[in-house]
Amino acid sequence: MLEQLKQDVFKANMQLKEFGLVVLTWGNVSAIDRETGYVVIKPSGVPYETMDADDMVVVDLQGNKIEGDLNPSSDTPTHLELYRQFADIGAVVHTHSAWATSFAQAGRDIKAYGTTHADFANRSIPCTRGLTQQEVEGEYELNTGKVIVECFNKENIKPMDCPAVLIHRHGPFCWGKNCFKAVENALILEEVAKMAFRTEEIAEIENKQAGIEKYLLDKHYNRKHGANAYYGQGNR
Amino acid sequence: MLEQLKQDVFKANMQLKEFGLVVLTWGNVSAIDRETGYVVIKPSGVPYETMDADDMVVVDLQGNKIEGDLNPSSDTPTHLELYRQFADIGAVVHTHSAWATSFAQAGRDIKAYGTTHADFANRSIPCTRGLTQQEVEGEYELNTGKVIVECFNKENIKPMDCPAVLIHRHGPFCWGKNCFKAVENALILEEVAKMAFRTEEIAEIENKQAGIEKYLLDKHYNRKHGANAYYGQGNR
Amino acid sequence: MLEQLKQDVFKANMQLKEFGLVVLTWGNVSAIDRETGYVVIKPSGVPYETMDADDMVVVDLQGNKIEGDLNPSSDTPTHLELYRQFADIGAVVHTHSAWATSFAQAGRDIKAYGTTHADFANRSIPCTRGLTQQEVEGEYELNTGKVIVECFNKENIKPMDCPAVLIHRHGPFCWGKNCFKAVENALILEEVAKMAFRTEEIAEIENKQAGIEKYLLDKHYNRKHGANAYYGQGNR
Amino acid sequence: MLEQLKQDVFKANMQLKEFGLVVLTWGNVSAIDRETGYVVIKPSGVPYETMDADDMVVVDLQGNKIEGDLNPSSDTPTHLELYRQFADIGAVVHTHSAWATSFAQAGRDIKAYGTTHADFANRSIPCTRGLTQQEVEGEYELNTGKVIVECFNKENIKPMDCPAVLIHRHGPFCWGKNCFKAVENALILEEVAKMAFRTEEIAEIENKQAGIEKYLLDKHYNRKHGANAYYGQGNR
Repeated sequence: MLEQLKQDVFKANMQLKEFGLVVLTWGNVSAIDRETGYVVIKPSGVPYETMDADDMVVVDLQGNKIEGDLNPSSDTPTHLELYRQFADIGAVVHTHSAWATSFAQAGRDIKAYGTTHADFANRSIPCTRGLTQQEVEGEYELNTGKVIVECFNKENIKPMDCPAVLIHRHGPFCWGKNCFKAVENALILEEVAKMAFRTEEIAEIENKQAGIEKYLLDKHYNRKHGANAYYGQGNR
Repeated sequence: MLEQLKQDVFKANMQLKEFGLVVLTWGNVSAIDRETGYVVIKPSGVPYETMDADDMVVVDLQGNKIEGDLNPSSDTPTHLELYRQFADIGAVVHTHSAWATSFAQAGRDIKAYGTTHADFANRSIPCTRGLTQQEVEGEYELNTGKVIVECFNKENIKPMDCPAVLIHRHGPFCWGKNCFKAVENALILEEVAKMAFRTEEIAEIENKQAGIEKYLLDKHYNRKHGANAYYGQGNR
Repeated sequence: MLEQLKQDVFKANMQLKEFGLVVLTWGNVSAIDRETGYVVIKPSGVPYETMDADDMVVVDLQGNKIEGDLNPSSDTPTHLELYRQFADIGAVVHTHSAWATSFAQAGRDIKAYGTTHADFANRSIPCTRGLTQQEVEGEYELNTGKVIVECFNKENIKPMDCPAVLIHRHGPFCWGKNCFKAVENALILEEVAKMAFRTEEIAEIENKQAGIEKYLLDKHYNRKHGANAYYGQGNR
Repeated sequence: MLEQLKQDVFKANMQLKEFGLVVLTWGNVSAIDRETGYVVIKPSGVPYETMDADDMVVVDLQGNKIEGDLNPSSDTPTHLELYRQFADIGAVVHTHSAWATSFAQAGRDIKAYGTTHADFANRSIPCTRGLTQQEVEGEYELNTGKVIVECFNKENIKPMDCPAVLIHRHGPFCWGKNCFKAVENALILEEVAKMAFRTEEIAEIENKQAGIEKYLLDKHYNRKHGANAYYGQGNR
């Protein structure tokens, strides 16, 4: 069932390792088949060295296991909430990549400081509010997903205009139209977070004003993602 | 004697190098066979390039050499003190990994700033008090072990709830149920230390409050290590 | 047409990846054949993994495509402005390398702090003024080139004495007599930026005065690039 | 002539690259044959990729070329001054390794913050005074050597107790009994500098006192390098 998607999700999970975005088993990629509503996701706590495509687990949008011998990622309920609420996304990635996680731990948004950020998202990358004790002690992973959705609704952010979020005290979730784009977004987020950190330190030395101008942010975002985008090879 | 354990300890020592946790010969792994009370440990000052499993040294819990042509690590008395006092541990790792060592040199605990830390330990990673001049000039390596034990007793920490410590002005010791888990803990400690540093710098820019909430710390620690843990594949 | 130059430009683009100067497709190298006035440049948004020398695009100095199936880099108008105004340069490189980009995002010059910098340029690496809203919303990439030229003219900098510039909120452009020298300059810039950041942080701890003395700057620049240079093997 | 020494010096130069201590051609290793008084040194500005053992240049202690087709490193007069004044050293290494160079650029000593430093040197790594304009414009490279010697004499430092120095605004020179030990010292210096930087930043957050206690410094230095050293395998 969904053999191609399993191959893709497996391969995307391995890319997390290749790109240096995960240590040990600290990450997971899933993708959804929107026709059947089935989600393919990495199993929980399996070392990347011994994992293969057949280990991927298939669940439905309510979290029932449809196929697979192993337990799905313990973060599965977060992934499912995102698929239920964000209709345009085809894949979800969670990592503890060090730069993005450090912003999450500090409870801070990643501000847009330059065109690298603007090529990626048309605003700062939001950090959610912290979960309450009740939310943590209840359906924690589901509530993590709900807090992301609340954050995007409250600030009126379209998920495809900002394909990443930071969970307070935890780390990033990213998404994309497919699992390779989602992993690419996790990689870009890490690079953007690293440069944001350095920009702040460098600007501080001379009390320089940092933060990209709105018109430059829009220009770069739109030349790559807007209706008249002219970056890349078009529909090739 | 203990051929399998020698193989494992040798392999775990090599992992320190692979994982980027040691420079030159600055690290050592040991493991104990609790039945015989014999400890297998890396020889002192032998380059990783030319070391093999047969070079591992066997000592008893009093430090008498039982087998081996080479001198055991000069840190052996520290390892032995930990085996004598911490009944649950099966292996000990010492490194000078750069992030953890920098916290040790600064004489600071690594505070729990997020869920990556909470997945590892249920509290801050303690930094011991400094050894006195008398302790340094006396049985220095043994006293290093005693200071670790004093630190854990004084703060009432269970060694398996916090599998790492920082020696003041020196560097980390880690442990685990076996030598591969102990090396894994050394790797996690380094990642956690790196992110703690960055979290502090990032939080400082906006005077943000950092530090994970107690209920979130407990949740993550227990979903991985508690009685009802649901991370991973259970007993697989 | 210009087959050797295409091979060189392709190879130089691949070096950006090897040297860790680009993530994904975030960089481009071009070179000019001064006899024909034709410029060979990387296509836009093509992954390095699947790119080859035949994908390089040939354009004239007015930006007309002369040869090639793909769209040239969206930054082509910036490259062309540099070739039109800086008569001595033979190649141009643009990257979003993390250290240099962080200085650009902070809107700061990279000051000359030591002899590594002096071996590279005889002054600080300038950061341009920010483009105005009108310049961004108009011919953005062309205006980027114009702002570089304005910066060099205003401060009376000879392009070959300072083979790099930072675009405000964006990132570095570098150049050289050929595409391999231009890539080498991009690599040196990144190293110089990294050390400048660290120098500032280290000097700050003790309120030390940082900044290389003018006579030492001149000495190092001239022993490598001056009329009586004695570094290297001469004309070999 | 001195074929084995040429092989060793060549190999040690390549190690600089392997260990990540040099970018492009920014480093050089030499070694002396104390019987003949001849020094084998890397040629100037030759890429590591195309260099081989036959390219090493032989000079005498007055700087006369004895053998070799290429120009010796432009830093040769600095190396020679060290061989003339420091009778115990057998090899010299110069790099622009990023952490050590950043301390040099800031004009600061690397203070001893922990046992990793104490295993290497029995005091802080000194940064020389800056050269005067006259010294820079005169025999610059020779004067660089003289400033190192002045620094060690003034502070009464034995070269083998502290096998490294920082040249103000420039970078490190290291030495050892042979060229492999000298490269090892360059590697240790870089690691020690990195951890010193981080220690200062970490200590600052809580206004912690940093700096290793004298008795611990002596203990670690002497257990490795003292008359009764017990680290390693003795004379093996």
